[in-house]
Amino acid sequence: MQFDKAVSVQWLASFTGAKLVGDADQMATGINEIHKVTKGDISFVDFEKYYDKCLNSAATIIIINKEVPCPAGKTLLVHDDPFTAYVSIVKHFRPFEPANKMISDSAVIGEGTHLQPGVFVGNHVIIGKNCLIHPNVTIYDHTIIGDNVVIHSGTVIGADAFYFKRRKDRESQYDKLVSCGRVVIHDDVEIGAGCTIDKGVSGDTIIGLGTKLDNHIHIGHGAVIGKNCLFAAQVGIGGKAIIEDEVILWGQVGVSKDLTIGKGAIVYAQSGVAQTIEGGKVYFGSPVEDAKTKMRELNWIKRIPEIWERLTAKN
Amino acid sequence: MQFDKAVSVQWLASFTGAKLVGDADQMATGINEIHKVTKGDISFVDFEKYYDKCLNSAATIIIINKEVPCPAGKTLLVHDDPFTAYVSIVKHFRPFEPANKMISDSAVIGEGTHLQPGVFVGNHVIIGKNCLIHPNVTIYDHTIIGDNVVIHSGTVIGADAFYFKRRKDRESQYDKLVSCGRVVIHDDVEIGAGCTIDKGVSGDTIIGLGTKLDNHIHIGHGAVIGKNCLFAAQVGIGGKAIIEDEVILWGQVGVSKDLTIGKGAIVYAQSGVAQTIEGGKVYFGSPVEDAKTKMRELNWIKRIPEIWERLTAKN
Amino acid sequence: MQFDKAVSVQWLASFTGAKLVGDADQMATGINEIHKVTKGDISFVDFEKYYDKCLNSAATIIIINKEVPCPAGKTLLVHDDPFTAYVSIVKHFRPFEPANKMISDSAVIGEGTHLQPGVFVGNHVIIGKNCLIHPNVTIYDHTIIGDNVVIHSGTVIGADAFYFKRRKDRESQYDKLVSCGRVVIHDDVEIGAGCTIDKGVSGDTIIGLGTKLDNHIHIGHGAVIGKNCLFAAQVGIGGKAIIEDEVILWGQVGVSKDLTIGKGAIVYAQSGVAQTIEGGKVYFGSPVEDAKTKMRELNWIKRIPEIWERLTAKN
Repeated sequence: MQFDKAVSVQWLASFTGAKLVGDADQMATGINEIHKVTKGDISFVDFEKYYDKCLNSAATIIIINKEVPCPAGKTLLVHDDPFTAYVSIVKHFRPFEPANKMISDSAVIGEGTHLQPGVFVGNHVIIGKNCLIHPNVTIYDHTIIGDNVVIHSGTVIGADAFYFKRRKDRESQYDKLVSCGRVVIHDDVEIGAGCTIDKGVSGDTIIGLGTKLDNHIHIGHGAVIGKNCLFAAQVGIGGKAIIEDEVILWGQVGVSKDLTIGKGAIVYAQSGVAQTIEGGKVYFGSPVEDAKTKMRELNWIKRIPEIWERLTAKN
Repeated sequence: MQFDKAVSVQWLASFTGAKLVGDADQMATGINEIHKVTKGDISFVDFEKYYDKCLNSAATIIIINKEVPCPAGKTLLVHDDPFTAYVSIVKHFRPFEPANKMISDSAVIGEGTHLQPGVFVGNHVIIGKNCLIHPNVTIYDHTIIGDNVVIHSGTVIGADAFYFKRRKDRESQYDKLVSCGRVVIHDDVEIGAGCTIDKGVSGDTIIGLGTKLDNHIHIGHGAVIGKNCLFAAQVGIGGKAIIEDEVILWGQVGVSKDLTIGKGAIVYAQSGVAQTIEGGKVYFGSPVEDAKTKMRELNWIKRIPEIWERLTAKN
Repeated sequence: MQFDKAVSVQWLASFTGAKLVGDADQMATGINEIHKVTKGDISFVDFEKYYDKCLNSAATIIIINKEVPCPAGKTLLVHDDPFTAYVSIVKHFRPFEPANKMISDSAVIGEGTHLQPGVFVGNHVIIGKNCLIHPNVTIYDHTIIGDNVVIHSGTVIGADAFYFKRRKDRESQYDKLVSCGRVVIHDDVEIGAGCTIDKGVSGDTIIGLGTKLDNHIHIGHGAVIGKNCLFAAQVGIGGKAIIEDEVILWGQVGVSKDLTIGKGAIVYAQSGVAQTIEGGKVYFGSPVEDAKTKMRELNWIKRIPEIWERLTAKN
C-alpha cells in the first residue's frame, strides 16, 4: 500500500513506540510485507534468520526486534513486537470504514455498467465501463475493476488475506496480519458464481485481461493471474502464486502458494501443483507430474501383481 | 431454446448478413447448440471436421463458414463467422433484461412458497408450491422450479454456462457462447448452501425429482441429474454430464463433462470420473476404477519394497 | 435440543399416535438423535440391530417400531414409523419461523458488533461483542456467536444438516431428518468468504476459540472443531467429525464423518481423512497415511520400471 502522503519516521517511531536508529529525517511513502517492498516502504522482520533479507531489501524503513547496524540510507524502528507495530500502522492508514448502504457513495461506476439488485460495492471501489455485476455479489473496499467485466452471483471480491501469526503462549493463538492490499481485475474478465478473490496482504491480487473463471474458484491473497487464463470450477489458488498467461486449469485443481505456473501450461482435473512448473506442458496428479509420465505410472501400478507372479514363480 | 414464434430464414440471413443457400421459405422455431438440436432449430458449425455431423443433425437451419451442398429440406446460412452469427441471434431473442428489484414482477410464485429476505428472483422465473427459499439465494431469469423444493442460502441457480471460443489472434482471446438455456428443478429437490447450478448453453440443466444436494456443489451447464440422487458437499459436475437416477456421489467427487454415470452407481469421496461409468457399481480413485480393484492396487503399492527386497536378495 | 419446559410422555404418545409402554409419568426435557442423547431426552430407533444401543443409551424416552421389554426408568413410545414420529416432534417444538426482515427482532447483537449491509440474522440469534459481519452473510435462526468474531461475505451459518432416510418404495425416496441443532461459534474465530457451517441434527456444531477458516470451507452438521485450528481454502468436514485443538488442514482436504483428528495433527493439501487419525503427526494422501510413508510410496512407484527391467533381464 502506498500512503496518500509521505509520513515521517519520527512520527512512526512515536506512534508505534519504537526506538529510531539510522536516518531520522526519512519519509515513508508506503507500507508493504517483505515480498512486495519498494523504495520508501516500511516493512518488518521479527526472525533473525530473515534479518539480512529484510535489511537488504528495497524497504527504506524496517521495524525490527533487535538493534542491529543500520544500513546506509535506511531507518530502523526497533520494537519488541514488529508484527504488532506493523499492523497498527496498517490499521491507522487503512481503517475499517463501516458501510450503511449497498453501494458506497465513494464508489465510481463506469458508463454502461449495470449492477443487479443485492450487489454490495464498498468504499473507494472503481468499476469500469460496460460491466455486468449479477445479484448478491460483494465487492470490498478499494477494489479496482476494468471494462467489460462480468461477475456472477454470490462471488466475493476483496475479502481479507488468510494470514496469521501464531503466538503459542496465548489461549487465542493467532494474530491477524491485517490486509491493506487490493484486488485489481483487468478488462474482459468473467468471474463465475460463488467465487472468492482475496485482497493482497499489502499488494494487489491481479486477474489479467481476458481471463475467465468458472464457479467456486478461490484466488488467494496477492496471487497474480495472467491474461487469457481459463480455470474450471472449484479450482483453488494459494496466496502469492503467479499464474502466467494462457494457463488452463481443469476442475478442482489446487495450486499451492508462492510458486509460478509457466505460460500456457495445462493442468488436468483434481491435480495438485505444489511447486513451480514450466509453461507449455501438460500436467496431472497430486503432486503433479508431466501428464504422460503420470499416466505411465498409473499403468505400471496395474502391473505389480504380474511382477509379483513372475518373481514368485521362479522359486 | 424455442422461439415464442417462428422466424423466417430470410430475416435470419438479413439479420446476420449471411448468404442463404437451400430452402428459402423455411421457418426457424428455435436455436440450439449441436448437442441439443431438434427439427426447426438453427445451429452452427465452424470446423470442417464437424460439417457432416451438423449437416446430418436434426437442425433445419445451419450457419456454416463454407458453401457446401445443402441437404434436402434444410437451409444453410453461409457466414464467415458462424459463432458470432449464432451468438447475435441468441442475444436478439434472449436479451439481457436488467432487474431493478429483488423479486421480478414477471416471476410466478406458487401457493405456500416462502421466500426469505435477500432472495433474488429474476424475470420469467416460475416457482411451484410449498417451496422454501432461504436468504440470499439468487435465481436467474427463466429458471423453472417445481413443488416442495428447498434451496439454502448463498446458492445461485441459472448463472451462465462456462463456454468460450478461443480466438488466438486477439489480445483478449475468448468469445463467450451466450447462454439461452434454463435450469429446471423438479419436485422434492433440496439444494444445500453455497451451490451453483448453471443454465444450459441452449437446453436445460435438469435436477430430477427427489434429488438432494449438500453444500458447495457445482452443476455445469446442461447437466441432467436423475431422480433421487444424493451428492455430498463440494461435488463438481461438468457440463452436459448425465447422472442417472439414484446415483450417490460422496464429498469432493469431480465429474467431467459429456459423460454418463449409470443408475445407482456409488462414487467414493474425492474420486474423479473422467469417462462414462456403468450403473450399479461402486467406484474410487482419480481417475475412478472399481472400488475393490482400486483398494487392491493401493495394497500392492505397499508391497513394492518387499518385491524389491526379494528381487535383490537373490543376487 | 432441550425443550423450554418439560413435556409429558402421555402428551407425546397422544401427539404422535404411539403406544406408551413403561413409565407413564415420565417428563421429556429434550429430543436428540442417538449420538447426542442425555437423560430426559427423547430419541428414536427403527432398526432392530440398533435396539440395544438405543435402549441402553442415556435416552429416557425411546420411540421404537416394536414392542420390546422396557428398561427400568424408561418409557417406550411404540410407533410404526419412529423416524416420522421423531420428526413430527422436532417440527412441533422447533417450527420454521418465516422472516420478513434482514435482522430479526429477536436477535441479540452485542456492543461494538457491526453488521454490514445485506447480512441476514435469523430469529433467536445471539452475537457477542466487537464482531464484524461482512456483507451478504446469512446467519440462520438459533445461531450463537461469541466475541471478536469476523465472518466474511457470502458465508452461510446454520443451514440444515444433510441427513435423509431412504424410502425405496416411494417415487420421491428421501425423507429429511429435520434439524433442531445449532451452530455455536466461540470467541476470536475468523471465518472466510463463501463458507458453509451446517447446524447439528439435534446437537451443536461448534467452532472453537481462536480457530481460523479460509474461504469455501464446508463444516458438516454436528462437527466439533477445537481451539486454534487453521483450515485452508476449500476444506470439507463431514458430519459429527471431531477435530481437536490446533489441527492444521491445508487446502482442499476432505474429512469424512464420524471420526476424530487428534490434537495438533497436520494434513497436507488435497488429502482425504477417512478414519480417525492420531494427533501430533503429519499426514498426506487420499486416503491419508503418515506423510513420510506416503512420500516414500510415491518414490517406490517411480521404481517399478526398474524392478521390471531387473526381473526380465535375468531371464
